[in-house]
Amino acid sequence: MNDCLFCKIIRGEIPSHKIYEDNTFLVILDIFAATKGHALILPKRHATNLYELNEGESAELIPLAKKIAEKISNTLNPDGLNILQNNGKAAGQEVFHYHMHIIPRYNDDGIKFLKSAPQTPQDVLEKLAKELKT
Amino acid sequence: MNDCLFCKIIRGEIPSHKIYEDNTFLVILDIFAATKGHALILPKRHATNLYELNEGESAELIPLAKKIAEKISNTLNPDGLNILQNNGKAAGQEVFHYHMHIIPRYNDDGIKFLKSAPQTPQDVLEKLAKELKT
Repeated sequence: MNDCLFCKIIRGEIPSHKIYEDNTFLVILDIFAATKGHALILPKRHATNLYELNEGESAELIPLAKKIAEKISNTLNPDGLNILQNNGKAAGQEVFHYHMHIIPRYNDDGIKFLKSAPQTPQDVLEKLAKELKT
Repeated sequence: MNDCLFCKIIRGEIPSHKIYEDNTFLVILDIFAATKGHALILPKRHATNLYELNEGESAELIPLAKKIAEKISNTLNPDGLNILQNNGKAAGQEVFHYHMHIIPRYNDDGIKFLKSAPQTPQDVLEKLAKELKT
């Protein structure tokens, strides 16, 4: 797409810090890094979000994430690592071209993704599970 | 593994709210739901984290996440959706059996995964990209 930031990076019109590239994906460092080594996996084809990925992209994403995570772990020796992928503004998506965050974590880096939530009542979960059965 | 909470759920020794099951995965509702519809994809084979997934599991995860996300979106009509997967205690992992969180998001649900970070200096990113090139 003409006005998509990540499409411009993929086409080389905007510089980026590439760490991996193949026919389907580009992996770059996030310039607004949450931690040292924070990387983004971008499908080269414009897909807005998870729902728009095609079969090939979907099947290759976690194998690639694993490869990138291994490289980051072996190089930077973080204490942990998150995979985060946001769909929609309400979920924190800021660039509307699918991207998977690979975020190495370090003890005391001050990031907390999920606060502890109270336990959901069993009857609420039971009703919901019936609705969501796939 | 004998003492693994998710292995016990997979073996049916501890009850859960299942929404999907196939030969490789079980999908259940998180009893400590961050939001309504918060689900967990569990590989049936015990794998501690991303690094221990096998090829088949890795290839099937995002296609399955997409299917579950579509079902949640069509049923609950959330405003967004996150995929989150934590590796290691420093990344917030609490059960050491791989699990991918599917978290529907609602406007004003009060969750914020990533705070805005300052821009990382270009020379720092350039050096790091060389180290991480894969």
